[in-house]
Amino acid sequence: MVRAAVMTGPDQPLELVRFANPQLEPGGMVLETIYSEVCGTDVHLWRGRLSGVPYPIIPGHVTVGRVEQVAGTVSDVSGEPIKTGDVVTFLDVHETCGRCYYCQVARTSTRCPHRRVYGITYSASEGLLGGWSQKVYLKPGVHVLRLPPALSPERFIGGGCGLPTAFHAVERAGVRLGESVVIQGSGPVGLAAVMLARLSGALQVIVVGGPRLRLDMALRLEAELALDIGDLSPAQRVQAVLDATGGRGADVTIEATGVPAALSEGMAMTRDGGRYVVAGQYTDAGEVSFNPHRLLNQKHLSLLGCWGTDLSHLYRGMALLSKFGSRFPLELTISHRYGLSGTGQALLDVEKQRVIKAVIDPSLP
Amino acid sequence: MVRAAVMTGPDQPLELVRFANPQLEPGGMVLETIYSEVCGTDVHLWRGRLSGVPYPIIPGHVTVGRVEQVAGTVSDVSGEPIKTGDVVTFLDVHETCGRCYYCQVARTSTRCPHRRVYGITYSASEGLLGGWSQKVYLKPGVHVLRLPPALSPERFIGGGCGLPTAFHAVERAGVRLGESVVIQGSGPVGLAAVMLARLSGALQVIVVGGPRLRLDMALRLEAELALDIGDLSPAQRVQAVLDATGGRGADVTIEATGVPAALSEGMAMTRDGGRYVVAGQYTDAGEVSFNPHRLLNQKHLSLLGCWGTDLSHLYRGMALLSKFGSRFPLELTISHRYGLSGTGQALLDVEKQRVIKAVIDPSLP
Amino acid sequence: MVRAAVMTGPDQPLELVRFANPQLEPGGMVLETIYSEVCGTDVHLWRGRLSGVPYPIIPGHVTVGRVEQVAGTVSDVSGEPIKTGDVVTFLDVHETCGRCYYCQVARTSTRCPHRRVYGITYSASEGLLGGWSQKVYLKPGVHVLRLPPALSPERFIGGGCGLPTAFHAVERAGVRLGESVVIQGSGPVGLAAVMLARLSGALQVIVVGGPRLRLDMALRLEAELALDIGDLSPAQRVQAVLDATGGRGADVTIEATGVPAALSEGMAMTRDGGRYVVAGQYTDAGEVSFNPHRLLNQKHLSLLGCWGTDLSHLYRGMALLSKFGSRFPLELTISHRYGLSGTGQALLDVEKQRVIKAVIDPSLP
Amino acid sequence: MVRAAVMTGPDQPLELVRFANPQLEPGGMVLETIYSEVCGTDVHLWRGRLSGVPYPIIPGHVTVGRVEQVAGTVSDVSGEPIKTGDVVTFLDVHETCGRCYYCQVARTSTRCPHRRVYGITYSASEGLLGGWSQKVYLKPGVHVLRLPPALSPERFIGGGCGLPTAFHAVERAGVRLGESVVIQGSGPVGLAAVMLARLSGALQVIVVGGPRLRLDMALRLEAELALDIGDLSPAQRVQAVLDATGGRGADVTIEATGVPAALSEGMAMTRDGGRYVVAGQYTDAGEVSFNPHRLLNQKHLSLLGCWGTDLSHLYRGMALLSKFGSRFPLELTISHRYGLSGTGQALLDVEKQRVIKAVIDPSLP
Repeated sequence: MVRAAVMTGPDQPLELVRFANPQLEPGGMVLETIYSEVCGTDVHLWRGRLSGVPYPIIPGHVTVGRVEQVAGTVSDVSGEPIKTGDVVTFLDVHETCGRCYYCQVARTSTRCPHRRVYGITYSASEGLLGGWSQKVYLKPGVHVLRLPPALSPERFIGGGCGLPTAFHAVERAGVRLGESVVIQGSGPVGLAAVMLARLSGALQVIVVGGPRLRLDMALRLEAELALDIGDLSPAQRVQAVLDATGGRGADVTIEATGVPAALSEGMAMTRDGGRYVVAGQYTDAGEVSFNPHRLLNQKHLSLLGCWGTDLSHLYRGMALLSKFGSRFPLELTISHRYGLSGTGQALLDVEKQRVIKAVIDPSLP
Repeated sequence: MVRAAVMTGPDQPLELVRFANPQLEPGGMVLETIYSEVCGTDVHLWRGRLSGVPYPIIPGHVTVGRVEQVAGTVSDVSGEPIKTGDVVTFLDVHETCGRCYYCQVARTSTRCPHRRVYGITYSASEGLLGGWSQKVYLKPGVHVLRLPPALSPERFIGGGCGLPTAFHAVERAGVRLGESVVIQGSGPVGLAAVMLARLSGALQVIVVGGPRLRLDMALRLEAELALDIGDLSPAQRVQAVLDATGGRGADVTIEATGVPAALSEGMAMTRDGGRYVVAGQYTDAGEVSFNPHRLLNQKHLSLLGCWGTDLSHLYRGMALLSKFGSRFPLELTISHRYGLSGTGQALLDVEKQRVIKAVIDPSLP
Repeated sequence: MVRAAVMTGPDQPLELVRFANPQLEPGGMVLETIYSEVCGTDVHLWRGRLSGVPYPIIPGHVTVGRVEQVAGTVSDVSGEPIKTGDVVTFLDVHETCGRCYYCQVARTSTRCPHRRVYGITYSASEGLLGGWSQKVYLKPGVHVLRLPPALSPERFIGGGCGLPTAFHAVERAGVRLGESVVIQGSGPVGLAAVMLARLSGALQVIVVGGPRLRLDMALRLEAELALDIGDLSPAQRVQAVLDATGGRGADVTIEATGVPAALSEGMAMTRDGGRYVVAGQYTDAGEVSFNPHRLLNQKHLSLLGCWGTDLSHLYRGMALLSKFGSRFPLELTISHRYGLSGTGQALLDVEKQRVIKAVIDPSLP
Repeated sequence: MVRAAVMTGPDQPLELVRFANPQLEPGGMVLETIYSEVCGTDVHLWRGRLSGVPYPIIPGHVTVGRVEQVAGTVSDVSGEPIKTGDVVTFLDVHETCGRCYYCQVARTSTRCPHRRVYGITYSASEGLLGGWSQKVYLKPGVHVLRLPPALSPERFIGGGCGLPTAFHAVERAGVRLGESVVIQGSGPVGLAAVMLARLSGALQVIVVGGPRLRLDMALRLEAELALDIGDLSPAQRVQAVLDATGGRGADVTIEATGVPAALSEGMAMTRDGGRYVVAGQYTDAGEVSFNPHRLLNQKHLSLLGCWGTDLSHLYRGMALLSKFGSRFPLELTISHRYGLSGTGQALLDVEKQRVIKAVIDPSLP
C-alpha cells in the first residue's frame, strides 16, 4: 500500500489515504518520492482559485524520486534508458498532444488544450498522479530526466517549480549581456529568476519584494539591490529603480508576484523600448488599470505574458543548477520540511509567507 | 513672401501669416508645397492634447512638394543628389541625435529625447517648419526622399502619415504569411494597416471600425470583413472575430483607435500566443482596466507598444505604394481638399469624422 | 488488390506490383490516391543519391486522395474529425518523436532522428506507404489535412512538395515587406518560392534559372525578372542582380538548385547584412569553394541552411494556395501526367527537365 | 610637439615622427595616451593585407587615455559632459553617416560605406588619428566613453579590440542560458569570447586554439576545455567536441581564427540547427571548400558573418568588464609592453604569437 495526502476540495483539510500499488502500463514507471514541493499554486488549489480542478487530487507537481520500477525501456531526452534506482524528476505537464493548432501551427505548446498536469489536473481517482505521496506513477510518455551526479535532490527541489517557470520568463524576456533586470517578487519564482538573470549576464539585478528573509536570500543569490515592499510605497519603488538605472528604468522587468497592481508599477520601472514579462498572474486576482498612452505606446514597451513550461525549461534549468549550484545553493531556500501528515500545516505556512520554500518529505513522520 | 497657416494655441482659430522667404544654411532646401496632410494628430494639437507644443506652430508633418532651392549638394538615402524641381517628401522627425543611450545602446531611436518633429514640436518662430504653408524649409540633415515616377503626389499624400505609422506597426507585429490579422480602427492608420497586412501575406484581414464610409474603403483595400462599431457591442465584436478565426482569435491584432477601452477588447480578439500591437494611443485619453491573468498571462500574449517612425518605414512604405498603388489607390481616401484659408474647417471636419482623409493644397484659394 | 509502382533499387526499372488491401490499426486510414507528385527527390531516389533508403520502396511523398476508410475517430489540426469521402492530403513526415533533444530542447523537429518519410524511408515491405499507388495507408498519428473547398486536387498537387519546402525557406529567410528577393532555381521549389516571396510583400522577385518554359512560369507567378542560366554566365547573373538592386544585391536570396556552385554565386547576389537561405542541397552533390572574408564575414551575411518541413508549412501553404490560387494557379505547372505504368518515363522526363511538373494519376492507364 | 609611431607602408620599418599639437575644432578633444593596443589587425596593416589603407598611418585603434583638452561641451552616451582629466576610451569607428541605405533602411550600420576607423583608414597626414602616439586627436562626433572607477586602464586595454569584437559575435550568436559554446581561436578575440560566452550563461565553453600560453589563459577565464591545435588534427578536434557535447556538437560555435579552413571544421563542430558565427575572417586569406549538403543544408545550420562593432558593443563590453573584472582580470593577458620606439618589435612579437597581448605605453622609453 502507498500513503498519499489528498486534497478533497477547496478549504477542506487534507486527508491521508492509502492507495494500492500502481499497475504499470508498458512504458510506465513507479517513482519512490524523495521530495515534493509545496508551491504557491498548491495554496491556490486549496483555496479553490483555479477552475476545472477535479477534486479530490493528490497535490505536488514538482517532485524528485528514485525509480522503483520501469515497464519496458523508457529513455530520457538524450536517448539514455532510465533504470531502476536512478534519481529522477519529470515534467509535470503531460499529454501535450503534438497535433493541435497550438502544438503544430502556432508552436505555442504550453497552450495546448489537451495538456494535463501532475498534482493539479489529475484526479486522485485516476491514480498516484501527484507528488505528495510515497510513490508516484509516471504514465507512459511522461518526460523523465535523471539528476546529474552533481545535483542533489535537496538542491533540485530547492529550485523546484520556480526554476523552469523562471527559465521560461527569462528566455521570453531575452535577457542579454549587460542589461539591467528588475524582478518583482521574491518567492521561489522570483528567486530563481534572480539566479537566471545573473547567469544570463545581467549587469544589475534588482529585486522588489519581501519579507526580509526572502530579500536576504535574493542578495545571497547575487542580486545587487533588494527593495522591501514593506518599507517603500509603489512610487518610491519606481523611483528607486529609476535612480539605480540612470533615470531610464530597467532594460527588462520580470513580474512574479500574482498581484495585478504590480503591472502598472512594473511598466513604470521598465525603460522605453524595454521588455516586461508577466509570469506571476497564475490565478485570477482581478483587474489592473493603467494608462496605455504613457506606459505602453509612448514607451514602445513589450509586455509579454508567459504561461507554463516545457521540457526545455526544466532540462536547461536543471543543467544550470547542476553546473552552478555551488554559487547558487538553492537548497538554502528550503526553510521548512513536512511529512505527509503535515501537508495542511505546510499550506498554511506557505500562505502566510512564514517560509521561503517548503518541501514534503514522505519519509518524515 | 510665403503664406502659411499658423496654429496660435489650443482651441484658437488658425491664422494666415506671411513669412519672409527662408534663408538657406548649407545643406538646407526649400520645398514648394504640393500637398500637406491633415492628420488626427493635428486635431490633438488644436485641442491641446499634446504636452510641450511650442505654440504658435505651423502644422503639417507629412508633406509632398517640389524642390525650389538646394544649398549645396544633398543626397537621398541611395546617395543620389536631390535637384531643383524634384518632387520629394521628407521624414518629419529630425534631430534624432545618434549619440544617446536610446540611439546607440538600446537601438530604439524613435525614443531619442532629442528628436524634433516638423509641424508638431517646432515653433513658427523657428521658421517654415510645417507643411501648411506655401513653402517649407528643410533644415540641413532632414531625410529627403524623391517620389518614384509611378507614385503621384495625390497617392502619396493619400497614404500620408498613416503609411509609415502602419508600416512600423505591421513590422513590429511581424505579420507572417498565412496569418489572420485584426485591425482596430479604420482611420488613415487603420486603412494603411489593412493594405500592409494584406501585402504581408495575411490570409484574412478583419477591420473593426466605422463609420460606414471608412469601412467601405477598408473593403476596397482588400479587407475580408469589416465590423461596424456602430452596429455591434464590444462583446459582439469579439465574438465575430472568434467566429471568423476558428474560435481562437487572430494571430495578430493592431490597435489604431486612440481609445483606451480598445485594449481589453483587442486582447480578447487575439489568439493565445498571438501578438497585439498598440499603435493608436498617441495622446493621453485615460486609463484602461483589464484582467492580466485571463488576457495576458494565461493567453501567453505579446502586447507591443509602438511609437513613432523612422526613415525605413517611410522608405519601404513609399516603395510599396509606388509598386502596388494600382491595387491600393490610396488617393481614393482623399475625400476633402482645403486651401490655406480652410485649415480651420479641415480640422473640424476631421474631428467630426466627416472625411476619410483631408489634405491641404496651398494652391487652392 | 491494390496496384502500386515499386522502385526496387537504384537505376532499376520500376515494377507494377499488386498488394493486399491494408489492414487498419486503430487510428489508421486508407486513402484512394487522386494524384501523387513526381519530385526531383524521386529522381535522386532512383539514381541512388540518398543514403539509407530501404529499397524496394513505393515512391510518392506528396499525395492527395479521397478517404476510403477510417478506423475510429481521427481529427485534423483544427480538431475536426476526418470522414470517409473527404479529399485530404497528409504530411509525408511521420514518427517525429516529440521526445528527443532535437524535438524538445533544440526545438528543431525537422532534425529529429526518428522521423520517417512516406515514399522515401519506408520500405514497400512495410505496406502501402507511398503515393504511387492506387491506395495509401495512413498509419495512426499521420497528420491529415482536408483540402478546403476552394482548392482543387489539381491545384494542390501543382504546388506539391515545393509548396511546404518553399514555405519553410521563405519563413527561415524572414522575407519582409518591401524587400528584394532572388530565387535561384526555377523548379517546383523555386516557383513556389516566387509565389510565396510575392505574397510576403517583396517589392521585387528575381528568378535565376531555366529552361525558358520554367522562367515563363516564374513570370506568370509574378516575378519581375527571370535570368536564364543558359544565356548568362555566373558573373553576368550576379551583375544583373546588382544592377536590379541599386548595386547592393538582394535583401534575401533563396537557393533551390541542388548545385553546390550556386552558393558562392548566391552569396555574391545578396546585399551586405542580407539573408541567404540554402534549401536546395538535398543530396550530396559535392563541395563548393568560397572566400569567407569577402562573401561572409565582410558582408555580415546570414547563410541559413533549411532542412525538411513540418505541419505548419503544409498547413499555411495550403491555406494560402486556397485563398490566392486564382492569382497563382499552380495547376498550370503540371505539364505532364502519367499512370502507374508510366512512372519510369515520368522519372526520365523530370530528370531531363522536359517537364515543369509531372504527376502520377493512378486512374490513367 | 607630439611623438607618434608611423607606419609608412607595407613591410616598412615604423618611424618615430614629431607632430605639432592638434588644433581643436569645436567639439574636438585631445587625449593623452595611456595605452594603445597592438592588435592582429596591426600586423595585417603592416603586411599590407588590407586594401585601401592610406599609408602613412599612425596605427592603434583601441586606446585609453586622459582628456587633456575639450573644445566646448561634449557629452558621452549618458549625456554626461566629458571633462579634462577624465580617463576615457573612444569608438575607433567614426563618420558612420546615419543617412545611407545601410544606416537607415537595412539597419546594418557596421556596413556603412562612409565609416572611417582610427588607426586604420585615416592617414597620418590627416592628424593624430591613431593611438600609437603620445596624444590622439578626437574629432567632433567621435563617441567617447569614460572608464568606470572600477575599471583600470590596464584591465580595459587587456580587453582591447577583442572585447567589443567578441561582444558583437556573442550577440549575433544569441548565446542563451545553458548552451554549449565552442570558440575557435585563442587570441584576444577568442579569449574575450570565452569570458562573454561564460557570462551569457553557457553551460560549457570549449576553446580550440594555441599555443599553450593562450589556452591556459582561456582556462583561467573559465573555459571548461581547451583543445590544442598543436596536438590534435582537425578530425580529432571535431571528435573531441562531439564527445564533449553528447555526440551532437555545440549549440553555438564562434570562429576567431582568421584561417579559412577553420570554417568547415567549425560547421562540423556545431549541432544540427545550431548557430555558427564567423568573426575572424578580417582579411582575405583565401578560399575554403565545404560540402553544403552535409554541413549546411542537412544540418539546418545558421552561418553568420559578423563585421565590425558599434558603440553598444564597446559600452556593454566595458560595463561588464568593470563589473566582473575581478573574475575575469583581462590585464593578465598583457604579456608584453612597448614604448613608441618598440612598435616594430611589438608587431613581430604579435605576428610570431610570442605574446598573448601586447600594448603600447608611450611613457616607456
